[in-house]
Amino acid sequence: MTSSVPPSTQSAVRWFPPSYDIRVETVPIPQIQDPDDAIVKVKLAALCGSDLHIYRGHGGVDAVHTCGHEFIGEVVALGSNFGAKVERRPFLYSSLKVGDKVVSPFTSNCGECHVCRMGYTARCPKGKLFGSPALEGGQAQFLRVPMAGGTLFNLSDPSTWSSNLSQEIKQQALSELSDSSLLLLADILPTGVFAATQAINHPKVQPVVTGRPWPLCFSDSPAGNEVMLTQEDRILTVAIVGLGPVGVCATVSMLDLVATKGIPYRIVAIDPVESRREKVKAVYDSIGDDGKGRGEFVVLGIDAAKEQVKAWTKGTGCNAVLEVVGNSSALTLAFELVRAFGVITSVGVHGEPQIPFTGREFYNKNVSLDFGRCPARAMFPPAFDLLVKRQDVFGGVGQANSLIDRIVGFNEAAESYRAFDKGEIGKVIFDPWK
Amino acid sequence: MTSSVPPSTQSAVRWFPPSYDIRVETVPIPQIQDPDDAIVKVKLAALCGSDLHIYRGHGGVDAVHTCGHEFIGEVVALGSNFGAKVERRPFLYSSLKVGDKVVSPFTSNCGECHVCRMGYTARCPKGKLFGSPALEGGQAQFLRVPMAGGTLFNLSDPSTWSSNLSQEIKQQALSELSDSSLLLLADILPTGVFAATQAINHPKVQPVVTGRPWPLCFSDSPAGNEVMLTQEDRILTVAIVGLGPVGVCATVSMLDLVATKGIPYRIVAIDPVESRREKVKAVYDSIGDDGKGRGEFVVLGIDAAKEQVKAWTKGTGCNAVLEVVGNSSALTLAFELVRAFGVITSVGVHGEPQIPFTGREFYNKNVSLDFGRCPARAMFPPAFDLLVKRQDVFGGVGQANSLIDRIVGFNEAAESYRAFDKGEIGKVIFDPWK
Repeated sequence: MTSSVPPSTQSAVRWFPPSYDIRVETVPIPQIQDPDDAIVKVKLAALCGSDLHIYRGHGGVDAVHTCGHEFIGEVVALGSNFGAKVERRPFLYSSLKVGDKVVSPFTSNCGECHVCRMGYTARCPKGKLFGSPALEGGQAQFLRVPMAGGTLFNLSDPSTWSSNLSQEIKQQALSELSDSSLLLLADILPTGVFAATQAINHPKVQPVVTGRPWPLCFSDSPAGNEVMLTQEDRILTVAIVGLGPVGVCATVSMLDLVATKGIPYRIVAIDPVESRREKVKAVYDSIGDDGKGRGEFVVLGIDAAKEQVKAWTKGTGCNAVLEVVGNSSALTLAFELVRAFGVITSVGVHGEPQIPFTGREFYNKNVSLDFGRCPARAMFPPAFDLLVKRQDVFGGVGQANSLIDRIVGFNEAAESYRAFDKGEIGKVIFDPWK
Repeated sequence: MTSSVPPSTQSAVRWFPPSYDIRVETVPIPQIQDPDDAIVKVKLAALCGSDLHIYRGHGGVDAVHTCGHEFIGEVVALGSNFGAKVERRPFLYSSLKVGDKVVSPFTSNCGECHVCRMGYTARCPKGKLFGSPALEGGQAQFLRVPMAGGTLFNLSDPSTWSSNLSQEIKQQALSELSDSSLLLLADILPTGVFAATQAINHPKVQPVVTGRPWPLCFSDSPAGNEVMLTQEDRILTVAIVGLGPVGVCATVSMLDLVATKGIPYRIVAIDPVESRREKVKAVYDSIGDDGKGRGEFVVLGIDAAKEQVKAWTKGTGCNAVLEVVGNSSALTLAFELVRAFGVITSVGVHGEPQIPFTGREFYNKNVSLDFGRCPARAMFPPAFDLLVKRQDVFGGVGQANSLIDRIVGFNEAAESYRAFDKGEIGKVIFDPWK
């Protein structure tokens, strides 16, 4: 065997049933199986809180597989459908090249069905979750990306996505942003932006955003003799329940949205764990003056947060609550904090317990609820814009305000899963080549 | 006693505990108790499906009271706060006069608190439900309206509300519309408009409305190389579950919204009861050509509706489902019909059963849900506009396409409650002077 023969095996982080069993194994390097496939050489792959569902044996999964649904890398092979321009196929089928740097959402998606065209890529009927028995994950040196023209996001060609930023600014940002910060695009940053975007665009929040009462807020007809909103009425009160990495991203996104739209705000970020609260405080401190004068932002434990919302709103409650945990107690807290005619946006991954409310409770509070998984592929453009704006927050590793705690090799994979599961460490990134 | 002495007693339809006991009694005519009060002489008062909750003894109510929360009438007395213009008080405190014709929402509301200014009048902290032990109802010859400047809607002065219609058209419509059709403003018409308005303004429906994928639909930034929606993608598919009077109003409102906004549509109106389906078919037939060429509209039973939605959407499901029933089986049907990233708007009055879904089910379908009571006072302007546009539908009594079945005197009150409860008759209006 000489060095000119390409390697046929690689290292990968593998999960073994029934639970808590992570092993680094030597496995074959994947090959193109379908003309729409890409093979990606992984530069970095992250460990995500939702990986712990399977790790703990709660995922209903019983097959050995390569872990991980957050990865960034470089295209090393493309199927035969790349290179040809075919009308109404995703642009990457005609533009993606070997050597391009790419990030992927946590699920594959075709990009060319009705659901994908709507932007609801996380529910593409052909989509699969990376790092599951259905699709090998990114905690490996190489992986296969199916439907890659629909799935991947080309970080070497910023002309491939729309943005409020100019091509020049995007290009410069791409040259400056670290791989570890770009990796946040894979899941947690778009999920945070998704939560905040749903809330601020909800009909029930529009009186605050537009300054016109419901339902005048939906029309441009001149107001009559209605009593108009006061300045005080137009303060958007938001609670964010759960300050894991996605909760931090949701917080930063919500702060950015209110600053960009010029909306006065009161935002409370809530977590019972002090270390998480300290992280969010450090993140907030590292944000510049952007809109800060227009609002109040506090980070509190559960009981203190309830008191704060009562004091702010005289008992009315929050206009919107972002629920970023995914269990019944988080939903119950969200319901307690939200006002009548308020909105709960839930991006937490919920399990089997029945929704802990009666129909009467929902009716009596006129509550709105948005559930579910972020369509990460569709959310990349605004998430990228936020990444560029908030490099102060998303750029670092291992600092007080960093979302990423450490970057380690696969030799530390099993221990990292164990410690992350126990809450002993924050978000970990694997460098498969370290 | 001579005829020059004003009467001090009146007839009223009263409910007696524990259930199914309706009596017409002679009771005192109410007097001004508070400077914000109005006394209204009732011209017509309607029987509403939600009256049946108390009628059947399901309302948790045990005190004798005058029934009814839908009424139209004439102001005969005003408290001392009327006539003076006070800044930021509702306009009617300075403009309402004895002799004005008024309609009321089914709950009182102050019109001057934060919740009311937002337009969420149905949840005014000071509000009370007419026809409950907290507030005597409208099925009487006279009633007292508290916080009347905030609560009432002045049908004698169309300058008091904003509208897309000109003052001239509003004035002419007010002179032409029958009292029985204006009475629909009290509850069922605004509730139907509310259901449709919430759905069509929901973020998850915006790709269909704007033609731009999520989340581009929220920005005006130029699209990049995204795959854009096709004509087929832009067809709004809606189901309306429950075709009682509110369901009919929701159907007419949804048809009007898609016609006005120029949105291609497929709408299925669903009820297991054939007579209700026949009513909706007659209503649809009486609507002119307005936008009909742009969509499909069908009225079906439950199983046929499921098949229809599958056939229309190749199994994807509806963008929005309006749930106008208020029980678990209606919610379950709505959930079955709605697509991933779809919206369920529920205006049905739900009871004590727990919401019949797990968190996992909500997460996996990315479902959005809007619950609760219509802020009828705030919805009067668009509901009035729809009333004017659709006099063909809302104008009649006792015809195949009429929402109102009959107008009777109080002597038929007890029998009307009984027959309405049994589903033997449609919507009944009482004329207290007949």
